[in-house]
Amino acid sequence: MSDPYDQLVTRLKRAHTLGTVADLLGWDEQVNLPPDSADVRAEQLAVLAETQHAAATDPEIGRLLDEFGRDGSPSRPTEATVSALGSTRSTPDRAVVLRHARRDYDRATKLPAEFVREKAAHSSHAYHAWADAKACNDFAGYAPFLEKHLALARREAELLGWGDRPYDFAIDKHDPGLTAAQITALFAELKRALIPLVRAIRDSRVRADTALFKAFPVESQLVFLREVTERIGFNYRRGRIDVSLHPFCSGTGADIRMTTRFDADNPLDSLFSSIHETGHGLYEQGLPRAHLGTALGQAVGMAVHESQSRLWENQVARGRAFWRFFEPRLRALFPTQLAAVSSEELYLAVNAVEPTLIRVDADEVHYNLHILLRFELEQRLFSGALAVRDLPAAWNALCTESLGQTPANDREGVLQDVHWSGGAFGYFPSYCLGNMMAAQLWAAVRRALPELETDFARGDFSRLLGWLRENIHAHGRRYDTLELVRRVTGEELSPKHLLAYLQERYGGLYLG
Amino acid sequence: MSDPYDQLVTRLKRAHTLGTVADLLGWDEQVNLPPDSADVRAEQLAVLAETQHAAATDPEIGRLLDEFGRDGSPSRPTEATVSALGSTRSTPDRAVVLRHARRDYDRATKLPAEFVREKAAHSSHAYHAWADAKACNDFAGYAPFLEKHLALARREAELLGWGDRPYDFAIDKHDPGLTAAQITALFAELKRALIPLVRAIRDSRVRADTALFKAFPVESQLVFLREVTERIGFNYRRGRIDVSLHPFCSGTGADIRMTTRFDADNPLDSLFSSIHETGHGLYEQGLPRAHLGTALGQAVGMAVHESQSRLWENQVARGRAFWRFFEPRLRALFPTQLAAVSSEELYLAVNAVEPTLIRVDADEVHYNLHILLRFELEQRLFSGALAVRDLPAAWNALCTESLGQTPANDREGVLQDVHWSGGAFGYFPSYCLGNMMAAQLWAAVRRALPELETDFARGDFSRLLGWLRENIHAHGRRYDTLELVRRVTGEELSPKHLLAYLQERYGGLYLG
Repeated sequence: MSDPYDQLVTRLKRAHTLGTVADLLGWDEQVNLPPDSADVRAEQLAVLAETQHAAATDPEIGRLLDEFGRDGSPSRPTEATVSALGSTRSTPDRAVVLRHARRDYDRATKLPAEFVREKAAHSSHAYHAWADAKACNDFAGYAPFLEKHLALARREAELLGWGDRPYDFAIDKHDPGLTAAQITALFAELKRALIPLVRAIRDSRVRADTALFKAFPVESQLVFLREVTERIGFNYRRGRIDVSLHPFCSGTGADIRMTTRFDADNPLDSLFSSIHETGHGLYEQGLPRAHLGTALGQAVGMAVHESQSRLWENQVARGRAFWRFFEPRLRALFPTQLAAVSSEELYLAVNAVEPTLIRVDADEVHYNLHILLRFELEQRLFSGALAVRDLPAAWNALCTESLGQTPANDREGVLQDVHWSGGAFGYFPSYCLGNMMAAQLWAAVRRALPELETDFARGDFSRLLGWLRENIHAHGRRYDTLELVRRVTGEELSPKHLLAYLQERYGGLYLG
Repeated sequence: MSDPYDQLVTRLKRAHTLGTVADLLGWDEQVNLPPDSADVRAEQLAVLAETQHAAATDPEIGRLLDEFGRDGSPSRPTEATVSALGSTRSTPDRAVVLRHARRDYDRATKLPAEFVREKAAHSSHAYHAWADAKACNDFAGYAPFLEKHLALARREAELLGWGDRPYDFAIDKHDPGLTAAQITALFAELKRALIPLVRAIRDSRVRADTALFKAFPVESQLVFLREVTERIGFNYRRGRIDVSLHPFCSGTGADIRMTTRFDADNPLDSLFSSIHETGHGLYEQGLPRAHLGTALGQAVGMAVHESQSRLWENQVARGRAFWRFFEPRLRALFPTQLAAVSSEELYLAVNAVEPTLIRVDADEVHYNLHILLRFELEQRLFSGALAVRDLPAAWNALCTESLGQTPANDREGVLQDVHWSGGAFGYFPSYCLGNMMAAQLWAAVRRALPELETDFARGDFSRLLGWLRENIHAHGRRYDTLELVRRVTGEELSPKHLLAYLQERYGGLYLG
């Protein structure tokens, strides 16, 4: 009889593998799926969700978990398990895996298969309903799908014993250990200092001129972004980049699928979205491959994930050192298009600050305001203070208040984001938490490696990647979000590094 | 309690859906997979195979099947089943579904899950071993994978009670009801008349000049082949075409994935391979969608499938009427490239006859000789008369004998085809059987619709497609291969229509 721990891991990996198949189908749905084939994809995903659920609730997993105590040592050691383990005291690695496996198993077994199937099928239907609604600016057609997603989210929280705090549960699913109250406090602190900075930059006479850019052939844009993303460390032998309506990154380090989209008149759009997705991809590629399928081979949560994408996109790729290396290469690819653009104009365009109604188009300074708005609305939806039918009006009112702009229609308002169509409530806060964390990690790595930016100016990003691999990626889910931040940076998570970074970079450019 | 038949169909469709997921992963493997991610794909396919096998052997399927007799009526009618069915006499549709479901279930339950998993994982590994071996011209490196595939095929035949006729079993998997002895007789008859025709054409002074073609931009080739395939009836709202090393068609009518490949100096290569795959796609798109997942929504077998792809590729798209409509459109897309090519030269190039070592490059006249060679070798491998290590020498000897050319290396010899790397023995004969069937169907449809080619000259292919939909596609697996041919054409399957067709088309062009 093989080691019960190994038997357990084999089963965990099996369930994980079925999850990676569902991820691939999700990627294919957004990259390749023929327009009328959504029905078959919904059915495939529903069957897969059921199948994965069955694998994750395999009673054998429960039996094997029962052989181990809370600290990972066999609770009821039998002769076989003792001799197989060599000792009744398991390694810390095992304790991590067992802790998460126990939690995941307990959660999975509380969800009826029918619920899992229904949620998966609904997510696929709701995605297409959202895409149609967005195309036709028809919120009313999408509202019933959103209402059902909210009902499913509440029901899931109830089934898992979070019935009194369904929104905290939604957050916990993305960032284990975090609560709405903690996030509210962090966001309030951020907002207090951010609003004056936003106002000051709006009043500045300095303006980036993105209308400088015209007619950048997509093929050459692709060449440039491949070069950039490869140089910062993405392994294209275990990943690829394609085109989709909304850029995203899916898969595991064994096979990463990133997407981007191209705007022929703005090469920076595709470039920065690709660097962002590459940050996610580097995290996944840095997780210990041998542990794929267990907690040691998994990302901590979405906030840490976003910290990785944001750090590469913003702290690194919007910095002067990065452009010292890449500007000549961009000019070599687009000599005529950039002939009349000075280096300073280019750098200002890279760091353009301009209010927009669209989150994914927002600059770093405004971005977090978009998140605060969504966090506020999610809380109201879950508390029952806001009905789905009143969501567009509430969105527009908050938008006017915080961004000083009002959507002319729901396409540039409440229908702009894909997340809710997949039932992904509690996800948005991760973006802002990730921004805070990225700035805090950036401060820490600059203390640890003060010469880092001279590397960048030479096109060498390996020391930064090495530091992230060692301090973040290598741990998998060993630590929860806040604990990881504490360990790596020596401080509690706080918005102060983000504020200092924004003040330094954008204050320098716009308020100089 | 719902109708036991409906319960059964729900379970059959569930297993089928898991199969379609595996198909999609297979497509992705050849179209998108990053080069180092083969390991994870092999694992995904192995887990899926296991999962699908578990769904196909769900004891509930067995229990439900036991409620029905051989003719589809409940064998042990209970009050519930009788009232649910309304009558104890089921419809003929049900009888078809139940007959196949019983056979599939009995076969699936005889295969241990571990065997299914091992075979799926091996197929994925062997595919990559073959691709590497082909790239490096290294048959020895691939031989052990092929040996294991042979051993797996023998073991599978044994498990299913075909231990004494493993090659007949391999054939039966692709073309239910056919045997090596029947095929041998058909092929012998074909060969007798084909060899003199091949020799006569070889001796002809008429020669197609394919060196006429130079520099056809791939983008425009794609525009043309999209137009052609759409006009003959492919529904791109439920399918797509991409690029892969080897063209193929996978998926179901709900989501067809075709592939092609481009040769910038030969626009006919990609065009005809796309039309071929479109023929497969049209068949799948024509199967009754409501029955997808049961025998009534499935193709009969590979020979019928090939009859559909061949009929469109050869009888239709190599004919004068087809080119009457499409030649002007081709010239509009490639005015300079075709300026010096006369209509007769173009038509001769479409029907070029030139011996080649490569099956997929072979013209219609030589093509069947490539199949006869493979059929011969597969029989020897299965009988034990030929060892895998001696396969390259045997291949080359047969090739010299039948094609009059000897491969300079194994890349243009035994390593050229992908099929064996997936364990698909017994598949090759389907190509030749499909050619016979295509010619026989073509003769039948021309009798039924004598004006058909005037439709083609107007770019209208709907009456042909309608006839195929009604006479072939609509039946699913209601009839076995030979029975279907008999019913639709009023004759037994025979090579005589193929020979007459080759004589008419190629005799006319080359021996005029």
